[in-house]
Amino acid sequence: MASMMFTDCSSAATSRLIPLHRRTGAVFLRHCVGQLRLRTTSSERSCSTLSVRSSSSPTPVVSADANSEAAASAMVIDGKAVAKKIREEIAVEVSRMKDSIGLVPGLAVILVGDRKDSATYVRNKKKACGSVGINSFEVHLPEDSSEGEVLKFVSSFNDDPSVHGILVQLPLPSHMNEENVLSAISCEKDVDGFGSQNIGELAMRGREPLFVPCTPKGCIELLRRYNIEIKGKRAVVIGRSNIVGMPAALLLLGEDATVSIVHSRTKNPEDITRQADIIISAVGQPNMVRGNWIKPGAVIIDVGINPVEDPKAPRGYRLVGDICYEEARSVASAITPVPGGVGPMTIAMLLSNTLLSAKRIHNFR
Amino acid sequence: MASMMFTDCSSAATSRLIPLHRRTGAVFLRHCVGQLRLRTTSSERSCSTLSVRSSSSPTPVVSADANSEAAASAMVIDGKAVAKKIREEIAVEVSRMKDSIGLVPGLAVILVGDRKDSATYVRNKKKACGSVGINSFEVHLPEDSSEGEVLKFVSSFNDDPSVHGILVQLPLPSHMNEENVLSAISCEKDVDGFGSQNIGELAMRGREPLFVPCTPKGCIELLRRYNIEIKGKRAVVIGRSNIVGMPAALLLLGEDATVSIVHSRTKNPEDITRQADIIISAVGQPNMVRGNWIKPGAVIIDVGINPVEDPKAPRGYRLVGDICYEEARSVASAITPVPGGVGPMTIAMLLSNTLLSAKRIHNFR
Repeated sequence: MASMMFTDCSSAATSRLIPLHRRTGAVFLRHCVGQLRLRTTSSERSCSTLSVRSSSSPTPVVSADANSEAAASAMVIDGKAVAKKIREEIAVEVSRMKDSIGLVPGLAVILVGDRKDSATYVRNKKKACGSVGINSFEVHLPEDSSEGEVLKFVSSFNDDPSVHGILVQLPLPSHMNEENVLSAISCEKDVDGFGSQNIGELAMRGREPLFVPCTPKGCIELLRRYNIEIKGKRAVVIGRSNIVGMPAALLLLGEDATVSIVHSRTKNPEDITRQADIIISAVGQPNMVRGNWIKPGAVIIDVGINPVEDPKAPRGYRLVGDICYEEARSVASAITPVPGGVGPMTIAMLLSNTLLSAKRIHNFR
Repeated sequence: MASMMFTDCSSAATSRLIPLHRRTGAVFLRHCVGQLRLRTTSSERSCSTLSVRSSSSPTPVVSADANSEAAASAMVIDGKAVAKKIREEIAVEVSRMKDSIGLVPGLAVILVGDRKDSATYVRNKKKACGSVGINSFEVHLPEDSSEGEVLKFVSSFNDDPSVHGILVQLPLPSHMNEENVLSAISCEKDVDGFGSQNIGELAMRGREPLFVPCTPKGCIELLRRYNIEIKGKRAVVIGRSNIVGMPAALLLLGEDATVSIVHSRTKNPEDITRQADIIISAVGQPNMVRGNWIKPGAVIIDVGINPVEDPKAPRGYRLVGDICYEEARSVASAITPVPGGVGPMTIAMLLSNTLLSAKRIHNFR
C-alpha cells in the first residue's frame, strides 16, 4: 500500500467545527490549518467495496465490502446512546442541585459573526442545555465587533455568579486574537478546558485539571462505559491538535496506556498504528486509516467527522470518519461509527463540565 | 531476554537530585516516588563484560565488552564540552547586557533544611552563576520553617527587580506543599519551567512557553548542537516524570518527531524502544536499557544518573546511566556518557533561562 502523507487539521474533531464548503466537485474542510493531502489515487480514497492488499503488512490481508454484513465483527460503540444516558444522568444531578440549594448551572456562549455552521453549533448547545435543565446565555456580536467588545462580555460572564461555564465559539473573525480572547476566560469557568494552565495540569502527573477538554474526555468516557481497559495497552493517537489529539494522548498516558502520537510528519504511520490496541484518530481526513493499518482486535475511536460527496445522499454529501469503517469493522474488536460515535459525546461532556463547574463553585456534592 | 518492569522516578533526572543514600549493600535513589523494581538477577544488572542474546530481537545479537574498545563505534555526545561552550556564550551575553544597559541577570535560590545533597546543588548553581557573571541570591531557611515563611520569600523575590529567576530547591520538607510553593513563583521568573501554565504552553502547538524546563531543554540542545535531525524521526522517551520525561516528549513532538512514551506500565518496553531513532531515557534505573533494546544507528540521550556500588571507586560507588553504556556504544550511532552527558547541560540551561528572563524583562535583545 502506498505510504500516505497527511497534515494535521487543528480543529478536525469537534462537531462544532464541521465544515461544509463545497467547491467544484470537492468538499473542503473550512478550518483546516494545513492543506489536507493524500498521496493516493481517487479510487483509493473511497474505502467501500475495496479490497485492500498489502505486501508489507504483517497483519492478515483484509477484504472488506460494504455490502458484506457477514464480514463485520466489531462491536459498535454507540456514542449516541452513551451520550443520551450521560445527559439523563446530568439532568438528574441538575434537578437535585436545584432542589437542594436552589441553584441551576449556567453556560454562556459568545458567538461573533454570521457563520452558519457556528450558529448551528451554538443553537445545538443551547438546545442541549435546555434538555438537561442547564441555563444558557448567549451573546451574538456582529462580525466587525472589536476584540475589546468580546473581552468585555468575557469579563462580564467571569463576574456573573449565575454563569458557571463560558465558551467562545470558534473560529473568531480573523481580526481577533483567539489566544487573547480564550485566555481571558476565568480558568474556573473554562469548560472547554483549552486554557494553558488547564492543559498543563492535564499533562502533569499527580495534578488534576479543572476541566478536561470535551472531545478527548468523551473518547475516554466511551472506553470507560464499554469497560475497555486502557492501562498497559498500546495506544496510538493520530493527529496532535490542541483540541483533540494532544489532550487525548495526555489522557491516555494518565490512564497508564503506552502512547504514541502519529502526525503529519510521521513516516509510515500505518506501521505504528498497526501496533495499537487502542486507536484514537483525529485528523479530519476521510477514510485515511485503512483496514491493514489496524491490528486485529484493536479498539477504534474515530473523532473525524468528514463530509464527502455523495450524489445519492439527500444533501449531496455524507459524513465519514478518519477510519475506513467498512474495512475496520472486520478487523477491530470495537469501533465508533461516524456519525453517532464521538460526535454526540462532545456536547454531553460540555454539559458535564458545566455541571461540574457549578458543583465546584457552590461546593455541592 | 526477560521482560522488565520498572516504575517511574518522578525526579530521576536532574543532577540536582542525585541521591546518595546507601543502606546495607544497596544504593537507594532518595527522591524516587515509586519503588524501583527490576525483575532481573543481580548478575543481569551489571552490563559490563556481558554478552546479550535475544531470540526475539530482530536486531543483530550484540556482544559488548567494557574492555573491548574495538567494538565501540558510537560517537560520544560530549555534554561537558557543549555545556562549557554554552556557558561561555552566556558570559558574553551577560557582559554585553551589563555594558549596554548596566543590568545583570539575577537568580534567587531558596533552600529549606539541611540536606547535604541539596546544599551541594545550590552551591554548584551559585558557582555556575558566578562563572558567567549572573548575580545569585540565596535564602537558607531551617528545616522547621513554615510554608508561609517560604512563600514570603518567594513573594519578595517575585517583586525584586534585580531577580529574574527564582528556584526553590526540591525536595521541600514533608510538612510543606510543594505545589503551593512552586505555583507561587511568578511565571515570568519560573526559570525551572515547572509551572502548569508553562507546561501547558509547551504542550500546545503554536504557543511558546516562557521557559523550557532545564533538563529536557538540555537534551534537545545536545541534539541540535550535534546536528542530529529530529523532524520525522521515531523518538522514544523512557519515563514520564513531570521534570524530564513528559516535557521531553512534548519538546520532541514540537520538533516533529513521532513520539512514543514508555513507562512503568508498558509491556515489553524493549520492543518499542527498539523502533526508536532517538532514545531519551529518564527513569533513574541503572543500566536498564540493554544493547538489544537499541536499533543500530540510534541516537541515545541518557538522562539517568544512578550511583551503583563499586568497591574499586574512591568513594565506593560510581555513576551510571539508564542505558547500558558498554553495550549501547557498539549499537548506537551517538550516545551521551554518564557522567559528562546531560548532567552538565541542566545547569547550563538554568543559566540560559535566567539570561533569557532578564533579557525579556528588560526588553534587551
